[in-house]
Amino acid sequence: MSKAQVSLRNKDILGLEMMSADEMDLILDTAKEMKNIIDRDIKKAPTLRGKAIVNLFFENSTRTRTSFELAGKYLGADVINISTSSSSVTKGESLRDTLLTVEAMGVDIIVMRHEAEGSSQYAANAVKPVIINAGDGAHEHPTQGLLDMFTIKQYKGEIAGLKVAIVGDILHSRVARSNIWGLQKMGAEVHLAGPQTLLPRDIENVGVKVHNRVEDALDQADVVNVLRIQRERQKKGLFPSAREYARLFGVNTDRLALAKPDALLMHPGPMNRGLEIAPDIAYGEQSAIQEQVKNGLAVRMALLFLVLMGGTRIETAN
Amino acid sequence: MSKAQVSLRNKDILGLEMMSADEMDLILDTAKEMKNIIDRDIKKAPTLRGKAIVNLFFENSTRTRTSFELAGKYLGADVINISTSSSSVTKGESLRDTLLTVEAMGVDIIVMRHEAEGSSQYAANAVKPVIINAGDGAHEHPTQGLLDMFTIKQYKGEIAGLKVAIVGDILHSRVARSNIWGLQKMGAEVHLAGPQTLLPRDIENVGVKVHNRVEDALDQADVVNVLRIQRERQKKGLFPSAREYARLFGVNTDRLALAKPDALLMHPGPMNRGLEIAPDIAYGEQSAIQEQVKNGLAVRMALLFLVLMGGTRIETAN
Amino acid sequence: MSKAQVSLRNKDILGLEMMSADEMDLILDTAKEMKNIIDRDIKKAPTLRGKAIVNLFFENSTRTRTSFELAGKYLGADVINISTSSSSVTKGESLRDTLLTVEAMGVDIIVMRHEAEGSSQYAANAVKPVIINAGDGAHEHPTQGLLDMFTIKQYKGEIAGLKVAIVGDILHSRVARSNIWGLQKMGAEVHLAGPQTLLPRDIENVGVKVHNRVEDALDQADVVNVLRIQRERQKKGLFPSAREYARLFGVNTDRLALAKPDALLMHPGPMNRGLEIAPDIAYGEQSAIQEQVKNGLAVRMALLFLVLMGGTRIETAN
Repeated sequence: MSKAQVSLRNKDILGLEMMSADEMDLILDTAKEMKNIIDRDIKKAPTLRGKAIVNLFFENSTRTRTSFELAGKYLGADVINISTSSSSVTKGESLRDTLLTVEAMGVDIIVMRHEAEGSSQYAANAVKPVIINAGDGAHEHPTQGLLDMFTIKQYKGEIAGLKVAIVGDILHSRVARSNIWGLQKMGAEVHLAGPQTLLPRDIENVGVKVHNRVEDALDQADVVNVLRIQRERQKKGLFPSAREYARLFGVNTDRLALAKPDALLMHPGPMNRGLEIAPDIAYGEQSAIQEQVKNGLAVRMALLFLVLMGGTRIETAN
Repeated sequence: MSKAQVSLRNKDILGLEMMSADEMDLILDTAKEMKNIIDRDIKKAPTLRGKAIVNLFFENSTRTRTSFELAGKYLGADVINISTSSSSVTKGESLRDTLLTVEAMGVDIIVMRHEAEGSSQYAANAVKPVIINAGDGAHEHPTQGLLDMFTIKQYKGEIAGLKVAIVGDILHSRVARSNIWGLQKMGAEVHLAGPQTLLPRDIENVGVKVHNRVEDALDQADVVNVLRIQRERQKKGLFPSAREYARLFGVNTDRLALAKPDALLMHPGPMNRGLEIAPDIAYGEQSAIQEQVKNGLAVRMALLFLVLMGGTRIETAN
Repeated sequence: MSKAQVSLRNKDILGLEMMSADEMDLILDTAKEMKNIIDRDIKKAPTLRGKAIVNLFFENSTRTRTSFELAGKYLGADVINISTSSSSVTKGESLRDTLLTVEAMGVDIIVMRHEAEGSSQYAANAVKPVIINAGDGAHEHPTQGLLDMFTIKQYKGEIAGLKVAIVGDILHSRVARSNIWGLQKMGAEVHLAGPQTLLPRDIENVGVKVHNRVEDALDQADVVNVLRIQRERQKKGLFPSAREYARLFGVNTDRLALAKPDALLMHPGPMNRGLEIAPDIAYGEQSAIQEQVKNGLAVRMALLFLVLMGGTRIETAN
């Protein structure tokens, strides 16, 4: 199938499990062009002028919300933020009614983050505007998966054939899930490591390799993706203590040295430095962490463009 | 008086009690044209370019705040949100000083929601920018009244001569008040129903019919407007319990059947489904609830346009 | 040195202590032109189109945040708000990581308010976008200092040779500090008054005159700048009671009469009326308090323009 036949126009972006490799290629190629807009002195393409995007966030977020807001604005769209604290949800309104209300205002895209797995699928069924999942519980965070793949391609050229290690709380991580689906479709070999209590059962069935020792996952890896430890989960008893976690699974200089010499170090942010990742490597030569943020903006611009305008070419005339 | 002589230019929009039928006609006619902008693929008219609108909200709101924000942006204005939680009010600044500060920044319109009755009149006296009341305590919510009238006209052609039933907590409802003033001026017959403790004394003096049994209000009604029950008021003892309220006053299939077969069902949102309104009718054939939201946007666009630009015609050229 | 040789292009604006009189002149002159944009019917210059500004606020603020937001929008820039309550900082992310994230999104200016003295200097060292300090602890609030100077020039023609009294909690006031540095460089004679516990030690070393009796500071003053009393500090025991403060240091009609008959009364807002300032003079003929807000917008527009575009001339063509 040639790329020209792939289109994401009017498609909901719910996760990478259901997305084809061709669709991902289309997004990554378009994101490359979008990155040029970010780097230009004038970050304003009129492409999405007259389009309206709502950031509907039921969980706190700086980077994802800001990234989508800037992505929309750089392309000329109107972007509106609705966050839980200021929303009718505090008045007891149902998710369905909130979605119907937003739909009725004529918006074109709803970017949604919600604590419930499957909530973005629910939204896609409930209303007509394109839904972009910005994180639904522990299920998926597709734009994070896409920006991670974009970053790997940028540094490594190709994804196929690489060994990618993902380290941390796999069980609760939507970032891990989107990475696993996406990377495997692009031909990477995915290795997971984390405390026994934080590895989903039967995860090996989806084709990944699972390790209890972080050293085994990192061994000769091309990419090391360190997940954020969500401290609030430690109360629930699933977690080792912070000190124990850092000792057993924290990625530091010594452990990173087990990977290939040019291995790429990634983290979705925000980081707990000294816990899951050591500061010296977080800001070191192998780190692509800040580049991931920039690429996240490019990937989100690409998605907003593709679901509204279709095609593979963008016009950036001023 | 011909419509051409009516102008809302530079007029504060504080409530429907003081608004003439001709002024309401002008708004509703203009809103019709605005609805076309919402339905177009490019929701961007440059009409209010270079105008600044501040949403000054001292109470939480999703739909009204978002509706005004999108209305302003669709017309090309800059829109700024100031909400209580992030405002100087938490530092003890007076309402007057907040208004003077916003005025000094050169804004053209202040859309204000505040818990005190009369606060928007106070604001209109205190500062020069046009004040649009987005809800002042239990007093008025004129844009809700206007969007309700717009919705009724859309489905019924004319308002004059219709029987409109308004059901619920009339005493604390600014929505009810704005509907009562507006609908009566347009020639409708307004019937109210609610628990005895939630009906204002002497309300019959303004020309409405008051019923203690919801069935009497609904009987042969053309329009049924169900108010939101504000659960927080139940603590104060004015209210029956939720279960009792639903049993005695909740609008459901059986009760709706008492109205005319083509009666329109309305609710200002957010709904407490199963309390004041049953889910099956809320999303049923007679429901105009989602259309109300869309019409709210159109009415607000019309108002923003009319108070800043005057006239009865809008230009939607791109 | 002629003004033409001064440029603020790509310079961080951290405080007035390090700013030259020529640079301040450039800002004040440019602000004069910006004030015309605010007064025009169309507040939209395309000068900063395609530029992105982030308001990164770790402390609550209405007026400063709104002022920068409108300033950016009036000049055509995209403006994004990030406030503590909704930010990753609640997830434990470090200031440095937050700054790196914002930088990675391609923004041109970060307007930052933070409770720590020196935080804006830290930010300037950490990232490439221009940092504008919108208040760093008790250290500096340069745009407030500049707008105060602009206001004094507007009413008095020149700053040099004037006696300016600053009254209140000098110890904790970034407004006082920025005023002291700026005004002295412009040739004013600065007099301070406040309770003994709220005067910084050795403050006389920077060239100001310090008084324990407010009457001595106000005597024959050309300008009286009344600081806001931050009530939250009273808990710490440094403060006299509110009543005692009002009695000993509150500026009222009688005390203002000690200054020159045409003395200008200023306050950075928000005011505690009846505490540090009496209501009748706050809204009286000598008050420039509302004008300060308007001038703040003009000064901020000037700064945004000068750090991004350089030069001394602005284009306001539409």
